[in-house]
This record gives sequence, structure tokens and C-alpha cells, in this order.
Amino acid sequence: MKDSKPFIHERALCESDDIGAGTRVWAFAHVMKGAKVGCDCNIGDHAFLEAGCVLGNRVTVKNAVLVWDQVTIEDDVFLGPNMVFTNDPNPRAAFRKAPSAFKPTRVKQGSSIGANATIVCGVTLGECCFVGAGSVVIRDVPAYALVVGNPARHLGWMCACGEKLGRSRTCSCGRRYALRDEKVGLVPLK
Amino acid sequence: MKDSKPFIHERALCESDDIGAGTRVWAFAHVMKGAKVGCDCNIGDHAFLEAGCVLGNRVTVKNAVLVWDQVTIEDDVFLGPNMVFTNDPNPRAAFRKAPSAFKPTRVKQGSSIGANATIVCGVTLGECCFVGAGSVVIRDVPAYALVVGNPARHLGWMCACGEKLGRSRTCSCGRRYALRDEKVGLVPLK
Amino acid sequence: MKDSKPFIHERALCESDDIGAGTRVWAFAHVMKGAKVGCDCNIGDHAFLEAGCVLGNRVTVKNAVLVWDQVTIEDDVFLGPNMVFTNDPNPRAAFRKAPSAFKPTRVKQGSSIGANATIVCGVTLGECCFVGAGSVVIRDVPAYALVVGNPARHLGWMCACGEKLGRSRTCSCGRRYALRDEKVGLVPLK
Repeated sequence: MKDSKPFIHERALCESDDIGAGTRVWAFAHVMKGAKVGCDCNIGDHAFLEAGCVLGNRVTVKNAVLVWDQVTIEDDVFLGPNMVFTNDPNPRAAFRKAPSAFKPTRVKQGSSIGANATIVCGVTLGECCFVGAGSVVIRDVPAYALVVGNPARHLGWMCACGEKLGRSRTCSCGRRYALRDEKVGLVPLK
Repeated sequence: MKDSKPFIHERALCESDDIGAGTRVWAFAHVMKGAKVGCDCNIGDHAFLEAGCVLGNRVTVKNAVLVWDQVTIEDDVFLGPNMVFTNDPNPRAAFRKAPSAFKPTRVKQGSSIGANATIVCGVTLGECCFVGAGSVVIRDVPAYALVVGNPARHLGWMCACGEKLGRSRTCSCGRRYALRDEKVGLVPLK
Repeated sequence: MKDSKPFIHERALCESDDIGAGTRVWAFAHVMKGAKVGCDCNIGDHAFLEAGCVLGNRVTVKNAVLVWDQVTIEDDVFLGPNMVFTNDPNPRAAFRKAPSAFKPTRVKQGSSIGANATIVCGVTLGECCFVGAGSVVIRDVPAYALVVGNPARHLGWMCACGEKLGRSRTCSCGRRYALRDEKVGLVPLK
């Protein structure tokens, strides 16, 4: 079927053969061989996906995002423009590490990372969390948490739909949540 | 006339037919169809101008700047390298918005935005304001204000010529200003 | 000899004829004529080296780094992804400066600059210093200092090998240091 193949812009550089159906790769983006990308993703201009990174389905990778080896992005994640991951906690040009010394980063299902944010490696971003634009994340983020600043601090909670939650933790969209604990974050109620 | 046509670098991707005379678009930059760019602008390498953005005349767009739909840049604005706009206040990959839900951003005449700054959508940057490098702007900026930090805070006032103003609000270049109020900012005196 | 020539990716744009042996320039990177690059450097995708910049040997330039005229990078420096330099302290689109009004920046041997960091021009980054990811540097950094935040503040000391130093200033790798003074920073002991 025509729709089952990814779309690669003629000015993109796509070396991976592990890209799902319906995914689009735009101009001047570079997907390395060994990068794994799911279905129906959108990879913006000037983005870079390194060998070893893994992206789920329906991930939005806005322009100029950089994703490295050891970074795992689950389904339905939004990576804002110019945001950047890392995988080496203390890089030195004269002391190259083995990849085994890199620290992995995981971004869980439904999360959003704002424009120009920086994610220091070795952290897990919980389900549906929201990292504000320009923030620098240096520790784990609880599920559904809104974090902002440099370093990023916990400011409140966000619904899966993107609305900020009040004290009732019931969203106008009808979704309701309970607080598991400050570290794990919220859990959705049926 | 030869000079009346924009210059498009052979490695650029320019799909817009609404670019003014004397404007230059450099390598690996991408100007989408539907982006409107005035005269004598300079669009640096790796910049991206999305359909729906509007740039005035003599705008400097340094390298890797990202400008989206609903962003309006007036004349004589300087956009520093790697600075980024946004247009969706709470993006979620699984909850796509209609463009009507995006928030517009306006950068008024003569403003400067420093390198790597982030402008959260829905704000107006007043005439000749100055956003320091690496700042994250989350609210309106008064005319001629200098703002810095994450979030950006009001630190002082800048002359149209780029010099910091002292308490007299008279610049060594001869320009003089009066304070309208803290929200509107300065107004130039004749 | 085959190895003595730099490698230029077929999608890169390399106009400089002053690039040392063993240096690699990757896809969508642009090295301008007049940029000087030493041996065995690695210039990542989407990086931009402007005419007038000088890079030493074995410099790692990660993806999308922007280096301008008046920026000097010594040997064995690591420039993290998306980090950006500046050379104009107060840019205004309508008041172009002569290059002589730009402020130089020097990054000394062995330093590391983290992802998405911003270096405001006119500063010197001391030998083997370490600028944390997302930091905004607005003043000189002492040798071997670790600085983080916006604006970047002095948080501790780093060994040449990348390990954080404790109060003894002796690293597990065997290197030892003495404090010259808070401004100059550490000096290695034999």
C-alpha cells in the first residue's frame, strides 16, 4: 500500500531502514542507520536521530531536535523545537567513553517537552509530564507533572489533554486523577 | 533590476513567492510556501520560516532561528542565533489543535532577541526591547526594556541604538526617552 | 596519504581550505571560507563555523553548534549539541557594527561546554572548565571550574578527566590540583 511507507523529503537524509508506516521525515533532517522510529511520527526539518535511539508511534519531533543513542521515546510524545537530549554526563573531548558509560534517558508515553528545553541524561520523564519551554531537566519528572525553570522545578500537574489541573485533579475534559506520591506523580482514575 | 530579486543560496530551500527585494536566504535554510518576508532581510543558515509567519523589512534572522505560523516580526528586528518561538501553549502529540487555538506572538519594530532565547507564545515584545541571550520570555516586554533570565525579568532600559540607558534616560547617541509606565515602557522624546 | 585529508560528508558545505588532517565534517554542516580548523576535529551535523573563527586540534563540535568570527577554541575542547556563541554584545538590526566592535571569546584547552549552553561574548573559559548543560555564561570561568545555571554560577571543580573533585582536589584518576585563586582557578600538580 502506498500509505504504508514512510515519506522522506528529498532534502532529508534517511539512512535507517527501521521507520514505521506513515512517518514523515522533513527537509535537512538526518535519521542515522540504526535509529528506530515507529509509525505515524513527524520528524521536523533539521532534526537529528542518532543510531541507537528508539522512538515509539505518533511521536512529534519538532524542528532541530537532537536525539541520541540511549534515548528512548515512548508513544504520543511531543518534542518541542530545538530541545536537546544528552547521553554523556561529563563529556571530555580527550577522554572518550565507551557507549556503555553513557546514561540512558526515557520519555514516557504522552509527555511533552517544550521548545529549547535541555534534558540531562540519566533521567526518566514520567507519563504525560510536561516540561516547560527553555527548562533544564536534571532529575526524574513525576507522571503528569509540570516542571519549569533552570533547573526545572515541579510547579503543578497537567492533564493528558494538556490542561493544567487544579486542586480537584479533575479536568474539564472529564479525566480525573489521584496522587500516588510526589515522586511517582498522578495516576488516572477510571 | 538585478538587485530587486531576493538571493537564494543554492543549498537553501525556498518555497515562498512572497519574499522582498534584497533579502538573502542562506544555506540549509527553509522558507515555506506561505511565509511572508519583507525587503533586505537576512535569513541565516538552518533557519526555518513556517507558512503563516510574517517578517517586515530589514529583519536579521540569525542561524537556526525557528519562526512559526502566527508569529509577526516587524521591521528592523534582530533574531539571535538558535532563538526559538512557539505557537502552541500546551502541545500534546495526541491532542492536535486547530491553528485557531494557537496563540500569536508579535515582535515590535527595532527589537533584539539574544542567542538561544525562547519566546513562549501569546506575548508582545515592545518596540526596541532587548531580550538577553538564553532568556525565556513568558510575558509581555515593555518598549525599550532589557529583560534577562529564566523566566526573563526586567533589568533596565536600552536605547534604540543598543546602549544601556542610565537614570537620565538620555543616551550618548543623543536620543532621549520618557517613561510612559512600567507596562508600556519608554517613549522617545523629540 | 589518504588519512591526511579531512573527510567532508557529501551533504556538508565546506568552503574553507584551512582544515587539518583527520578532521571530519558531517551532513548539513557549513564551514565558511576563512574558518580555521585544526586536525582530528569532529564537526557534527548542522554545525556552522563562520569565517574568522579558529579551532585547535581534536575539538569535538557536536550537532548544530554555532561558532562565529572572533571565537577561538583551543585543543581538546568539547562543544555540546546546540550550544551557541555570540560576538556582538548588543546587536541591533538597524545599527550594524564593524567587526572591530565585536567582543572576542576564548575557550581554553580541555574545556567542555554542555548541551544548549549560551556563551555571551567577551569572556574567557579557563583550561578544562566545565559549563553545565543549558547554562548561560556571562563572565569568565576559572580553570577547572564547574559552572551551571542562568546566569552560570561556580558550583565546584572538575578534573581534566571529567570527574568532579572533592575537597582534597585529588581525583581517583591520580591527578592532583592546587587552588591558585578563585578567579584563576586550579593548577595541576606534578
